[in-house]
Amino acid sequence: MPDFDLVIRHGTVATASDVFAADIGIAGGQVLALGRNIGPGAREIDATGKLVLPGGIDSHTHIEEPRPGPTANADSFASGTASATVGGTTTVIGFARQARGGSMAAGVAEHRARAEQSRIDYGFHMILTDPRPEILTEELPALVEQGYRSFKIFLTYSGARITDGEALRVMAAARRLGALVCIHAEHHELIEFYTEALVAAGYTRPVHHAWAKPMVVEAECVHRVCRMAEALDVPIQVFHVSGEESAEEIERAQRRGLKVWGETCTQYLVTTAEDLDRPGLEGAKFLCSPAPRAKADQAALWEMIRRGVIGNVTSDHAPTRFGGPNGKTAFGEDAPFTKLPNGVPGLAARMPILFSEGVAKGRIDLPTFVAITATNAAKLFGLHPKKGTIAVGADADLAIWDPERRVTITRSLIQDANDHTPYEGFEVTGWPETTLVRGTPVVENGRVVGAPGFGQFLPRGPYDLI
Amino acid sequence: MPDFDLVIRHGTVATASDVFAADIGIAGGQVLALGRNIGPGAREIDATGKLVLPGGIDSHTHIEEPRPGPTANADSFASGTASATVGGTTTVIGFARQARGGSMAAGVAEHRARAEQSRIDYGFHMILTDPRPEILTEELPALVEQGYRSFKIFLTYSGARITDGEALRVMAAARRLGALVCIHAEHHELIEFYTEALVAAGYTRPVHHAWAKPMVVEAECVHRVCRMAEALDVPIQVFHVSGEESAEEIERAQRRGLKVWGETCTQYLVTTAEDLDRPGLEGAKFLCSPAPRAKADQAALWEMIRRGVIGNVTSDHAPTRFGGPNGKTAFGEDAPFTKLPNGVPGLAARMPILFSEGVAKGRIDLPTFVAITATNAAKLFGLHPKKGTIAVGADADLAIWDPERRVTITRSLIQDANDHTPYEGFEVTGWPETTLVRGTPVVENGRVVGAPGFGQFLPRGPYDLI
Amino acid sequence: MPDFDLVIRHGTVATASDVFAADIGIAGGQVLALGRNIGPGAREIDATGKLVLPGGIDSHTHIEEPRPGPTANADSFASGTASATVGGTTTVIGFARQARGGSMAAGVAEHRARAEQSRIDYGFHMILTDPRPEILTEELPALVEQGYRSFKIFLTYSGARITDGEALRVMAAARRLGALVCIHAEHHELIEFYTEALVAAGYTRPVHHAWAKPMVVEAECVHRVCRMAEALDVPIQVFHVSGEESAEEIERAQRRGLKVWGETCTQYLVTTAEDLDRPGLEGAKFLCSPAPRAKADQAALWEMIRRGVIGNVTSDHAPTRFGGPNGKTAFGEDAPFTKLPNGVPGLAARMPILFSEGVAKGRIDLPTFVAITATNAAKLFGLHPKKGTIAVGADADLAIWDPERRVTITRSLIQDANDHTPYEGFEVTGWPETTLVRGTPVVENGRVVGAPGFGQFLPRGPYDLI
Amino acid sequence: MPDFDLVIRHGTVATASDVFAADIGIAGGQVLALGRNIGPGAREIDATGKLVLPGGIDSHTHIEEPRPGPTANADSFASGTASATVGGTTTVIGFARQARGGSMAAGVAEHRARAEQSRIDYGFHMILTDPRPEILTEELPALVEQGYRSFKIFLTYSGARITDGEALRVMAAARRLGALVCIHAEHHELIEFYTEALVAAGYTRPVHHAWAKPMVVEAECVHRVCRMAEALDVPIQVFHVSGEESAEEIERAQRRGLKVWGETCTQYLVTTAEDLDRPGLEGAKFLCSPAPRAKADQAALWEMIRRGVIGNVTSDHAPTRFGGPNGKTAFGEDAPFTKLPNGVPGLAARMPILFSEGVAKGRIDLPTFVAITATNAAKLFGLHPKKGTIAVGADADLAIWDPERRVTITRSLIQDANDHTPYEGFEVTGWPETTLVRGTPVVENGRVVGAPGFGQFLPRGPYDLI
Ligand SMILES: [Zn+2]
Ligand SMILES: [Zn+2]
Ligand SMILES: [Zn+2]
Ligand SMILES: [Zn+2]
Ligand SMILES: [Zn+2]
Ligand SMILES: [Zn+2]
Ligand SMILES: [Zn+2]
Ligand SMILES: [Zn+2]
Repeated sequence: MPDFDLVIRHGTVATASDVFAADIGIAGGQVLALGRNIGPGAREIDATGKLVLPGGIDSHTHIEEPRPGPTANADSFASGTASATVGGTTTVIGFARQARGGSMAAGVAEHRARAEQSRIDYGFHMILTDPRPEILTEELPALVEQGYRSFKIFLTYSGARITDGEALRVMAAARRLGALVCIHAEHHELIEFYTEALVAAGYTRPVHHAWAKPMVVEAECVHRVCRMAEALDVPIQVFHVSGEESAEEIERAQRRGLKVWGETCTQYLVTTAEDLDRPGLEGAKFLCSPAPRAKADQAALWEMIRRGVIGNVTSDHAPTRFGGPNGKTAFGEDAPFTKLPNGVPGLAARMPILFSEGVAKGRIDLPTFVAITATNAAKLFGLHPKKGTIAVGADADLAIWDPERRVTITRSLIQDANDHTPYEGFEVTGWPETTLVRGTPVVENGRVVGAPGFGQFLPRGPYDLI
Repeated sequence: MPDFDLVIRHGTVATASDVFAADIGIAGGQVLALGRNIGPGAREIDATGKLVLPGGIDSHTHIEEPRPGPTANADSFASGTASATVGGTTTVIGFARQARGGSMAAGVAEHRARAEQSRIDYGFHMILTDPRPEILTEELPALVEQGYRSFKIFLTYSGARITDGEALRVMAAARRLGALVCIHAEHHELIEFYTEALVAAGYTRPVHHAWAKPMVVEAECVHRVCRMAEALDVPIQVFHVSGEESAEEIERAQRRGLKVWGETCTQYLVTTAEDLDRPGLEGAKFLCSPAPRAKADQAALWEMIRRGVIGNVTSDHAPTRFGGPNGKTAFGEDAPFTKLPNGVPGLAARMPILFSEGVAKGRIDLPTFVAITATNAAKLFGLHPKKGTIAVGADADLAIWDPERRVTITRSLIQDANDHTPYEGFEVTGWPETTLVRGTPVVENGRVVGAPGFGQFLPRGPYDLI
Repeated sequence: MPDFDLVIRHGTVATASDVFAADIGIAGGQVLALGRNIGPGAREIDATGKLVLPGGIDSHTHIEEPRPGPTANADSFASGTASATVGGTTTVIGFARQARGGSMAAGVAEHRARAEQSRIDYGFHMILTDPRPEILTEELPALVEQGYRSFKIFLTYSGARITDGEALRVMAAARRLGALVCIHAEHHELIEFYTEALVAAGYTRPVHHAWAKPMVVEAECVHRVCRMAEALDVPIQVFHVSGEESAEEIERAQRRGLKVWGETCTQYLVTTAEDLDRPGLEGAKFLCSPAPRAKADQAALWEMIRRGVIGNVTSDHAPTRFGGPNGKTAFGEDAPFTKLPNGVPGLAARMPILFSEGVAKGRIDLPTFVAITATNAAKLFGLHPKKGTIAVGADADLAIWDPERRVTITRSLIQDANDHTPYEGFEVTGWPETTLVRGTPVVENGRVVGAPGFGQFLPRGPYDLI
Repeated sequence: MPDFDLVIRHGTVATASDVFAADIGIAGGQVLALGRNIGPGAREIDATGKLVLPGGIDSHTHIEEPRPGPTANADSFASGTASATVGGTTTVIGFARQARGGSMAAGVAEHRARAEQSRIDYGFHMILTDPRPEILTEELPALVEQGYRSFKIFLTYSGARITDGEALRVMAAARRLGALVCIHAEHHELIEFYTEALVAAGYTRPVHHAWAKPMVVEAECVHRVCRMAEALDVPIQVFHVSGEESAEEIERAQRRGLKVWGETCTQYLVTTAEDLDRPGLEGAKFLCSPAPRAKADQAALWEMIRRGVIGNVTSDHAPTRFGGPNGKTAFGEDAPFTKLPNGVPGLAARMPILFSEGVAKGRIDLPTFVAITATNAAKLFGLHPKKGTIAVGADADLAIWDPERRVTITRSLIQDANDHTPYEGFEVTGWPETTLVRGTPVVENGRVVGAPGFGQFLPRGPYDLI
């Protein structure tokens, strides 16, 4: 009788600390053994010459999240999570949004229902757009208890932004409840000021989106939220740190002893504001907020990853189609940037790009790659040690990589429901050929085999990073 | 026939650069000659053994400025400027306030009329409490043209605060018009959050005013306004920098190449939050905003003066009586700090305290004292070289100091219209015995002899610091 | 037939990344499996309620190393490594010293022979006291090839110091050969200057040792060696960073992109210069170089550990007896500090003190403890993944800790050959009850059972930290 | 009877603080009056439309200082000081060098005798090449008493360098005697290491001089001397700070509260290492130590001047002819850089280049120009207020500038005894047309009229900067 449901043999296993040769024995969806020549599995995978890494955790994804206006989110949970698995990601954290004037619990219920078709395990951040006292005191305690352990707030975007005063009350609630506050930090009035001036002067092409929200807009607000967190003694994560000056504010906060964590996203490491200036509306494919910055900012972000200032890298997957009635081009060739939907898709591309640009190019070592794609997010968002590592007792969420394989990223490879990727033509070294969720293959040799609905909701615990 | 109206003989003259023995020949209210054994004056003053310094410029004073509620400003321009001259100050810049919904020009007219009785020359900052577009585009150009060359904005205080969006429009107007923006920078919602929590918990004594607005509240906002100034490429002065962390934000801005100037006030150099904790309501005598900080902040501010990060020191003279129906104690012994009027008097004490704590104690040299009490303010606020130095052609605004004289500051010495001073009993070395405005004595051996109405309005030019 | 020679069951395993419940299956001295309910072992240890941690690596130890003058090293390899295992340490790196004018190869041969009686595995740094060209070009290549992968140089100490010019040639050789340079960095002439002045003035008690080598002496030299490493593009480790200013220099170097690693030692985290001022010669028990600093430096060092600036903590075990003809007191009660032998013993106390002060007091988490006591040293000194972690294929060097046990450190507990410990009476929470080297118990329930000679020489590879 | 020997009328006078219109009345070589319409002078100069500035103080000049080897110093005191006055400089501080094994007093006597033919006032730094105890205790007290108030030490250059230990003793002597230590700071062994490697590899052209002493060599040593000054609590000036990293070390020292002053030189503001790479031996015209750096360093130095980190700018005038038997080319076209004499001439070009690049281009204002060319050096080297400013009682050392005049610098204009200038063809705006020393014209409309021997020795007092 086989000892394990599955054994992955002869691979090189990596954690955020170590790299070692070991077979992995899996049963009941968990890693039950790491060893040499372990007993037989009902099924076996030969990973000779391959890396076996923790499946990725993408802690910042907008999947099947409704969008304002005529545009639509291109992905369902079924399509989005298929794409995630193609890139080696096995857990996503999405967003449940409160409607203005509405209930957070209702928002959670609605979004959670959408995730029924997820192919991989998932959790939610709760977007508080209207943190009325009764929401904070009556709804949130139960929701946190149910494992919705993080709040997302916006300090810009007309439909979602809350005031500094509201943000303070959200932070205070997070402190009481042991939840983590994640923040989209840009100075709203400054963006409005710039936008008004640019539009008045006729600067309305996609690239002017980057002019309307330059680094100073973000750096100001990153500092502000760090100070608010300092004032209330509450941990926060600053989302999508896009360049050097913002990262410096994070680092200064950390050096004051604050629990402030920084996240960046794939696009800030490989695209720049110049991409927004491609001919016609091509630039719109790179339009997101914060805006991509300069080459020097990419280097600075890698350095901040190396220094540990920025602890995880996500996709901020926010898919709008490019063409069609709900796409980025729906407003016409001359649409001003103020009408163009924000956000880029990136679930599948995240880990291959980070592996290639990071590990293959020698910027980071393999344990650091594991840390920034999986382990740190697991720790910060209350999923560790069940998720984010390869250890006895952890879920067998794994990605089996060919570290040498050279791949050109294309739309067809990505397997999401979109019609484009900003990374079209990007060449990478290293590719996750097989992906498993709780021991069950969801991608086999690049083919999606995971079933919609296989994914489970993840109630999350408190953050456990010191 | 005498060459000069007045000759000051045998004194030691100091400027922001030099210290030298010279007679000063004055005619027509101006310094016409500096020399050895210059020709006779119609009148002569023997300054043997004395320092002859530029009269002080106190660029941040609330004199005869109406206050909200039942409290009243203790000083008229006649009383306030008498007190100023006692302490060697010969120029004040006060404030003209726009009423919410009202006209800035009307505010200027009203406040300017009050200053008719000033004994010394004066200018005004314009407090913009409601910067509607028509104010910025229709009223301000003419007012700036008339020499009202600086705007004051508040980012806190319910009656005066404007939003960040409004502040940006004020900054943009200042840039167009060549005016300087001065800012009271504290994070309003954070103060509200703390205040609410403190009041709810019964922490309402004067010292809790300091708890409601700790350093983080100011440091956040100082950074924010520096970033706003950076975004719009406009110079600013940050008012009343109260301690180390705020000064660090100023310094960081300067190191990014910004024209951001820092001001501190006498009280932040010699009082601390502990003074607010004196028995009964005694602490209210030290209550101002920002709140006094810690001993270490005092040392840090001196260091920042030494490094040039903070360029001038003012009184922020804001006099409310202690007793009486309009005084700080009018709300009863148990009045919560939220009801207590903000602000401390300090026109007379400023220069003697700075001389004593700075020069006599060896923290700064005499040229630096001249710079931070007179020359730098003159340059920044468009009064140089007419004011702020001793040079040929400059107004003969002078203070003749006995550098050795030891004086204990008392209410009676101060000669303002108030009933207390926070510096009661403070001992200083060095005292300005004689003060002259445009060559005319306004204090002689400590006796006020300047006449109400002698002071003239100073139309100011643009700042001239590189 | 049992699957394993030994199984450690039901413990909580920790690595530098993860903490998880697992049994450990050991055979042939290696970890062959980590799992739940793994097959039987010929022998089993029940670790219920215990932590199973990687055995410590103490990469800076002076064991059985001859001392100049009448004093003697108290420990033999047999006694020193016994003490190491008592504290959970399973690998030591000692020093092989070149005699001035002599051969490095001869020094290595001599010291290696002494280590024959080691109870645990060991390696050597080579102390180059006379780096003549022929040493660098003829001897070192072969020695590095044999696994002596690191050079130690002193920039102070009359008998050992080399010049900056010599240090540069050592660094250049290290770069060619792929070896790491470890440096004792203090400004020699400054120590001489201070010492001469102190002795002339009669300040000769043990505490004046700290006066003769204050922080500035070390901070200068740390910066200097970082710049030399920068100039030659060669990685270095700075030994025994004793406080804030030196650590800041390390951090600045790291931020310039240099591969400069910082080490600190137990004593700098728990003793201060005041300990040197204990009555009589008691202070001599704390006398080492660099000298212990202030309380604030201890806090700064913990912060630098938290920030990753300082990556490993060693004992700098340098044992001289206190009494007897070869002890610290051999020169009489009035012996000037210049005659007192430097160095403190600390092999056993290192890990328990770090566990207690770090993990139990909440300054660091358990993975960080593993990193700074074992994993990072293994990576830096070419022992990873064979040593320094718990992973499949790694040597089964393990310490089984009772995390709750409260222990008062005493001489008898330490089990070295010395007559005192500077940590006498120090109370710790957490203690390693059982220690194994390559699967063989060397301490069982606090009793040393490892055999002299069981330890093996560790040929080391190049450093593998990015 | 005229009131004054000389009156300079209708000019615009500038000090380090102020700019104002005034006539200057001069008698007995001193400024006796500054005023409007002052009494007549025996002679009058019309300065309408001109600036009247303090004559420059060049506190770092090698004039008629013997050189090692076959090369010779191109200038005598007569020729060098003529050139100085052409550029508006009225005071020089040269060097008196102790011979190795010889007496400092003898060196002073010898160098002082050479200066008999100086056309302008002068002082000396004493170069201590052999600070034996008897020199420090027996010779220096008297020499300092005579007004030789500063010591110069070299930490590199084979013929002049002293050890760190010797430097410490010099610093200690300076502290006792109230003298200032000026330091040439480069890491000697590192230069040797690089040089040896470069020469071995055949990199021996003039540009490789810059490769042999890159910024790291200087930055290391600047930090080292700052730490030594910190350790001994003694003020120092770091000579010729050549770029950003060294200036940062100065700034860090200042921020630790140290009295460390930084000097830079004209050439570091306008030449770069690329100039050393000009064809043939042309590059040798720019060869000096430290070596010129990059464009970015020039910008950084201006910023450090603006921040006050670097307080004065000198020429480090060190003239070797280019051609002829004693010139830089005397060793042949293929001479390795190791044989080429160091140093560039620059007495005349200093102030015009600083005025043009600084004031005319808007990098600094006029008072700052005065400060960095005259006032700060006067204060630091004990010449203030006699020299370095325009004030009553000060020596009438003046330069009358046409601020608009455009001049192309050429050899003939410079009027020194050299055969080239590194600034040949450099275009400047602003030129000092008339120069006066103690009220006596030494340059009139560009023509040298000062007499050899007119200059006087300046006994100097202690530094008086706080
Ligand atoms: Zn966002
Ligand atoms: Zn997002
Ligand atoms: Zn204010
Ligand atoms: Zn005010
Ligand atoms: Zn050492
Ligand atoms: Zn050691
Ligand atoms: Zn030099
Ligand atoms: Zn020189």
